[in-house]
Amino acid sequence: MSTAAPRSAGPDHLWSVDEHLDDILRTVRPLEPIELHLLDAQGCVLVEDVTVPVSLPPFDNSSMDGYAVRVADVAGASEQYPAALEVVGDVAAGQAELLHVGPGQAARIMTGAPLPPGAETVVPVEWTDGGLGEGPAAGMRARSLAPEGATGQVNVYRPAGPRAHVRAQGSDVRAGDRALAAGTVLGPPQISLLAAIGRGTVRVRPRPRVVVLSTGSELVQPDEELRPGQIYDSNSFALTAAARDAGAIAYRVGAVADDAATLRDTIEDQLVRADLMVTTGGVSVGAYDVVKEALSYTADEDEPGSGVDFRRLAMQPGKPQGFGSIGPDHTPLLALPGNPVSSYVSFELFVRPAIRTLMGLTDVHRPRTRAKLTASRALTSPKGRRQFLRGRYADGTVTPVGGAGSHLVAALARADALIVVPEDTESVTPGTEVEVVLLG
Amino acid sequence: MSTAAPRSAGPDHLWSVDEHLDDILRTVRPLEPIELHLLDAQGCVLVEDVTVPVSLPPFDNSSMDGYAVRVADVAGASEQYPAALEVVGDVAAGQAELLHVGPGQAARIMTGAPLPPGAETVVPVEWTDGGLGEGPAAGMRARSLAPEGATGQVNVYRPAGPRAHVRAQGSDVRAGDRALAAGTVLGPPQISLLAAIGRGTVRVRPRPRVVVLSTGSELVQPDEELRPGQIYDSNSFALTAAARDAGAIAYRVGAVADDAATLRDTIEDQLVRADLMVTTGGVSVGAYDVVKEALSYTADEDEPGSGVDFRRLAMQPGKPQGFGSIGPDHTPLLALPGNPVSSYVSFELFVRPAIRTLMGLTDVHRPRTRAKLTASRALTSPKGRRQFLRGRYADGTVTPVGGAGSHLVAALARADALIVVPEDTESVTPGTEVEVVLLG
Repeated sequence: MSTAAPRSAGPDHLWSVDEHLDDILRTVRPLEPIELHLLDAQGCVLVEDVTVPVSLPPFDNSSMDGYAVRVADVAGASEQYPAALEVVGDVAAGQAELLHVGPGQAARIMTGAPLPPGAETVVPVEWTDGGLGEGPAAGMRARSLAPEGATGQVNVYRPAGPRAHVRAQGSDVRAGDRALAAGTVLGPPQISLLAAIGRGTVRVRPRPRVVVLSTGSELVQPDEELRPGQIYDSNSFALTAAARDAGAIAYRVGAVADDAATLRDTIEDQLVRADLMVTTGGVSVGAYDVVKEALSYTADEDEPGSGVDFRRLAMQPGKPQGFGSIGPDHTPLLALPGNPVSSYVSFELFVRPAIRTLMGLTDVHRPRTRAKLTASRALTSPKGRRQFLRGRYADGTVTPVGGAGSHLVAALARADALIVVPEDTESVTPGTEVEVVLLG
Repeated sequence: MSTAAPRSAGPDHLWSVDEHLDDILRTVRPLEPIELHLLDAQGCVLVEDVTVPVSLPPFDNSSMDGYAVRVADVAGASEQYPAALEVVGDVAAGQAELLHVGPGQAARIMTGAPLPPGAETVVPVEWTDGGLGEGPAAGMRARSLAPEGATGQVNVYRPAGPRAHVRAQGSDVRAGDRALAAGTVLGPPQISLLAAIGRGTVRVRPRPRVVVLSTGSELVQPDEELRPGQIYDSNSFALTAAARDAGAIAYRVGAVADDAATLRDTIEDQLVRADLMVTTGGVSVGAYDVVKEALSYTADEDEPGSGVDFRRLAMQPGKPQGFGSIGPDHTPLLALPGNPVSSYVSFELFVRPAIRTLMGLTDVHRPRTRAKLTASRALTSPKGRRQFLRGRYADGTVTPVGGAGSHLVAALARADALIVVPEDTESVTPGTEVEVVLLG
């Protein structure tokens, strides 16, 4: 990627997509880590190396339901000549005080229970008569229904070598081993391991809180009546959903009318719960572009990077964009254009990487691939602008859906990919290989 | 897949993985649909065809900030010979009462604002002097700062054909079109479309509520002190996280001691918030296998499918499994084995498809692929059992991590795939192509 243009590039500078993205990624920093309960940390990035405090399993234990015995006592056992042993009691999982198994003795043992002193191996219950004297057993009867099973005599029909069906202490992880490295994303198996080694909380970067607000006096909420000149607010719904998909905790503020004072008040009011602020609309060259009007103030000269810069991008859709930071904590703010498709494409290219950078992820971008263009006619693209067309990807080919118009939200709902047409390409003929962003 | 064995297959029947899965998928039914607000419906399956009630855009509107004019008035315009027009006022987005544009007149118009009566086309502000009389303009000044911009005279430097920069009414979707079909999964773009056509709520299948409880007197909670014979409860954490990952709302109850009455009481207490119940542990052949003891009651003969059946599967890990339904609503219950790796593998193979079936999804299974085995020696597998080994998949090859032991939770945390060794295969040599389940 190219180096970002300086923030002082001036109003006439036409920013490339990469310059704008670089500016965002250079500015946005991962959130400060906090200690979270395991299930609250799901999907988050670990910031510490986690060391195993105690070996797993913490003690030698049985991997089967059966009998803990001495090797010599069952050495010659067969169905014809079973080894008859005295059952001295039960060893259940979780039991602290253990029996001692002497010569000629057996302790009935459950899966996960500690191997008792004196015992050298475990014979599964299916290799015995289970104490019932009726040939090989299918299992044990429940202790609560048949307490006599913990006493009496058991016939063992097969020998077992030393430590058979025994899980050795430390055979899973050893105390001092590194269980997980800093940077690991915590999914279910990692959470399983952390719980298993006794960690109830971990230090992770939290999910960023993203506040989404749309602007426009023409916007009304779904389910309300549409009057002349009005349309429904869809951006605040789409971007809230997309922010959650990216990993954020997203708050939808909804639509704010085109009034700079109201917008400034709303943003200031919401700042307290925002790690990132996203607005849509009001960033272009019109006389009512309220976001630009409200936020185009001179930055604090002592605070590099403060203030919001509005710029033109060499991109279609999504030419007008704003980026900067606001408020006492310099909360990053991305101001997206108001057309639904423009704002959604801008989210995928700029906001999603910003959210994932806040989370501390290294893999911040949507995956890209190359695909053969399937289309009935050539795609056209304006010279000098990178175009992102909506498409459907399957098996190495991509097919455009809908047209290039930035208001075609119906086509967007059928797309699962963006087709990238580079700045210097004005026409792409069917069959050509193109770059594709997979929206997954 | 083979046909499921009858529920009355008897205690000696050794179930195949497919028979058990078929039994689950034949029994579990998608949840009844409910009406949810758009953002609560994210990730859910739509159960109705949604029709467009009003065309989008609802009216002809400008795609640019500029001037709405008559075609003839700008026909010959150039920088040298600009068309000078009288500015009759502003048309902002959301404005209900429109100006009339007569010959020799122009209305300053904002992106998204309705094309006013009399106007036939739009010239972008960059093709005019913006009313400032200083050559081509970069944009408009904010109305609040420069109200005089809505009056006076504008010089237009380029002609525009009929309906240039005009988005036609109905060019996105037309009233009566099907916006989304029943069965669509609602992601951000689909939510965008629903909002855009004014739908604030939709009828979807809700996310299933899954109650997860682990059993075992040996289990203590993470961050507590480990006494002799005890281990930490990891299954309830792992499966709660995994259930969420699969799309469910998951509740972790934690560990219940090995006492049948306590377990029955706990399950009955939790039933009110469960669409699916998942237990771990206590399903094997030991004398303290509390889940089996508590739930192996005779089913109600009037209610086919009621009761919980405990069975042996031709599978490693995960041989002992329970499945059935409990309580007055016949809530499905899956009783998984207690070893952490066994329970996690069982979740992926059986619980995840059950959750996704409850959601009404058709794509309920993890994706599978074929990969070349990379290993230092041959894998061995018991005859007659389908083995699932943990592995790492990359670029068409898969490498085992950890061993076959079902307690190796540390290795599980490094795995991203399961290697499937079929029932009739006892050895797999390196370089062989194997089936792989991608855990994504």
